[in-house]
Amino acid sequence: MLEVEDKTPLPKSDEPATEALAFRDEEGELNPEFLAAAADAIEASEADRLQQLVEGFHESELGDLLEALEPDQRPRLIELLGRSFDFAALTEVDEAVREEILEELETSTVAEGVRDLDSDDAVTILESLPEEEKAEVLEQLPAIERVALQRSLDYPEDSAGRRMQTEFIAVPPFWTVGQTIDFMRETADLPETFYEIFVIDPAGHLLGAVALDRLLRSKRPVTIQEIMDDEPDRVKATEHQEEVARLFERYNLVSAAVVDEAGRLVGAILVDDIVDVLEEEADADIKQLGGVKSDEELSDTVLYTQRSRFPWLFANMCTAFLAAGVIRVFEESLERMVALAILMPIVASMGGNAGTQTMTVAVRALATRELGRANAWRIIRREAAVGILNGLVFAVILGTVASVWFQSPQIGLVIGLALISVLLFAALGGIFVPLTLNRFGVDPAVSSGPFVTSITDIVGFFSFLGIATVWFRL
Amino acid sequence: MLEVEDKTPLPKSDEPATEALAFRDEEGELNPEFLAAAADAIEASEADRLQQLVEGFHESELGDLLEALEPDQRPRLIELLGRSFDFAALTEVDEAVREEILEELETSTVAEGVRDLDSDDAVTILESLPEEEKAEVLEQLPAIERVALQRSLDYPEDSAGRRMQTEFIAVPPFWTVGQTIDFMRETADLPETFYEIFVIDPAGHLLGAVALDRLLRSKRPVTIQEIMDDEPDRVKATEHQEEVARLFERYNLVSAAVVDEAGRLVGAILVDDIVDVLEEEADADIKQLGGVKSDEELSDTVLYTQRSRFPWLFANMCTAFLAAGVIRVFEESLERMVALAILMPIVASMGGNAGTQTMTVAVRALATRELGRANAWRIIRREAAVGILNGLVFAVILGTVASVWFQSPQIGLVIGLALISVLLFAALGGIFVPLTLNRFGVDPAVSSGPFVTSITDIVGFFSFLGIATVWFRL
Repeated sequence: MLEVEDKTPLPKSDEPATEALAFRDEEGELNPEFLAAAADAIEASEADRLQQLVEGFHESELGDLLEALEPDQRPRLIELLGRSFDFAALTEVDEAVREEILEELETSTVAEGVRDLDSDDAVTILESLPEEEKAEVLEQLPAIERVALQRSLDYPEDSAGRRMQTEFIAVPPFWTVGQTIDFMRETADLPETFYEIFVIDPAGHLLGAVALDRLLRSKRPVTIQEIMDDEPDRVKATEHQEEVARLFERYNLVSAAVVDEAGRLVGAILVDDIVDVLEEEADADIKQLGGVKSDEELSDTVLYTQRSRFPWLFANMCTAFLAAGVIRVFEESLERMVALAILMPIVASMGGNAGTQTMTVAVRALATRELGRANAWRIIRREAAVGILNGLVFAVILGTVASVWFQSPQIGLVIGLALISVLLFAALGGIFVPLTLNRFGVDPAVSSGPFVTSITDIVGFFSFLGIATVWFRL
Repeated sequence: MLEVEDKTPLPKSDEPATEALAFRDEEGELNPEFLAAAADAIEASEADRLQQLVEGFHESELGDLLEALEPDQRPRLIELLGRSFDFAALTEVDEAVREEILEELETSTVAEGVRDLDSDDAVTILESLPEEEKAEVLEQLPAIERVALQRSLDYPEDSAGRRMQTEFIAVPPFWTVGQTIDFMRETADLPETFYEIFVIDPAGHLLGAVALDRLLRSKRPVTIQEIMDDEPDRVKATEHQEEVARLFERYNLVSAAVVDEAGRLVGAILVDDIVDVLEEEADADIKQLGGVKSDEELSDTVLYTQRSRFPWLFANMCTAFLAAGVIRVFEESLERMVALAILMPIVASMGGNAGTQTMTVAVRALATRELGRANAWRIIRREAAVGILNGLVFAVILGTVASVWFQSPQIGLVIGLALISVLLFAALGGIFVPLTLNRFGVDPAVSSGPFVTSITDIVGFFSFLGIATVWFRL
């Protein structure tokens, strides 16, 4: 019976006690106990214990650990782990954290760490270095790597050229499947991962691509030319990464060739980088709609965060003063009828929320290219209709409640009329503001909010106080 | 000189005129002229012209075209294209559009269209059918396909089992690389795309996986066992798709094995489906933060949209009444000093916006697992500090402007004090509300908004009117 009752798991004697510390709990959150143990090992400069803790960690786990540590512990972790620290982990942390860490490290440490990386990861790290140090690190690299990295770095920021991997396999079209497979078996220095091989002419122009499964399914004597896709998915190196991401998303790609202006193959871009781009983009949209700068991260300092949030609050303050100016026009009405002062924030807040609903849908649809010239009018009509309908419904609800609350059916009628007008204007503002900003090349996610709420506030206060003044002859 | 001046491109005589109609313009938006031409062809029931227009279209382009057409034209396009219509296009449209189209089609048409699809696409379409029709379609399929699809459909909605592809390659560990490659060359009925082959025991348990590039690089006599990764990336079929997506994102995967409760291989999940899941998830977060249901689509009807947006506006109305109740407490103060009525919306609006900023950051960080128990206190302290700092800054600005506007330094002082308190509470509300909702298993993206704004409204009105009442002895 003892075995049945004893539910405590026995410690396995052949495993060290630290093994029991899971990096993540069941919900996927970082385990605070693990973090404490790692911080302890760093503070005590116990390289062995730290090594044991992070044994077998994936670069993304190392990255998460770095972010969770206190800022001064981060470079010390890297120094303690020495050669066994995988620099790819630095590509998994926020840019601000990466910059901070790199500032603390010796250029020779960085050069050594960068050497073992795929070119796209190396570029991500080099991007985060100040010009001078970047040059120093590049100097310490072997010439071939240096040239390849320098070429990537010469492309504009956030372009396909920066995200691409310069390691790829490219064969001539007259090779056979057998030759190609033998080549891959014999070459030690292949890219770490690849999903297609490219076909080029002697001048390096991209002719085609063969997916690996296609290659595997073909018989040895077949030539590459016969099985290659001669319209391979390609992007220009100067193309913005978001455009590349849309392409991957639209055509379900895992890999695409990157070519220069002359159509010469210069690299390959893989889906894992695209997943990161899509996440960054969604992140940026979410933050911007909430009035936060797209690059704000949890790791930012208080002062930086305060300053970065200031402009939006300032813009909001200006529009709030505009709205207050509208209220002041009706100062006398308010003095005669204080109920108006009590109810007016309700009208404005309903308008603000309805406007935000429409704006959210419009901004997102613009970002995903679902909303465009072809359907703009249809969507505007739909939003206006939704606005009027919700206006009618809430006019009845709010009107009734206000009538009862202030024992005056007339005040119910006035707030109801005001609500219909504000919800219609909220719908129109919510769609026209993003469309207009987009037309003029301004990112609607960043700047729609203050415009929409100032429209709804002004229309809300003006229509409610205006209708009341006329109705009650105040 | 004529050649230089003549900039009009000559029409190529060997291409039909319709070729000139691009599906998308340079900005990636659907070309309205193309849409009009397609709609014309459908209205005139000219199958040939339509066929010519969509010749060589990718499934995603066909999908975009379907969405852009008027609802009654959509099923007619499918009927006109007949066998040449690729049913995979239906997986690229909004769920509501898919359901509408499928309702209009004969079950035999659907059954035939589904037969040629990968199992994951077929499941996506079958999911959108009402139970009865789903059974009818399944009945018309060959037994093997029916069983595989039925098994996927038996897994819960939005699980890995629903998203997986049931076509995969699985070999025993004792096979050689040569045997495996020969098998793939000789088997006609392989999955359309795959990036790894799986290794199973006779009972179907997953033992390992071999990436295709690894297979290609190995010599023919090497056994699979020697080169396989014996801890392959795997997910349970019942796992939620969002958890699977986080895994792909974290470990940069392109493919993962799907196993049942007993560890038997039942399918493979590929990165292109994961990209869609990530997009859906980001979309849902953005919409929910803006007070819109996550499944709202541009293609929804006016009535559906109005009803789906109602609850959020209603919740907002209730909190607005609460705030109005707070104002009413200070009715007498307002009667004596109408300036308070003019300025109070500014305080509330500043609080609302500051709260939204913090909330946006918190909700997003919770969704991406960047915010958790390990760092919650650090983030709370940071947000509180940012709130107090911005409170001080705006107290000075707003206080000065209000003093000048109302010729009263005292009113400036009062609004400044109120602002500090409301920005601090906004920061605390913005972080505690999402954290608390998350703790209780409620999605913070859906419900944080109304809570946060009701906190900021109530604190805003109460502190401004309260401080004013005490200060001016109203």
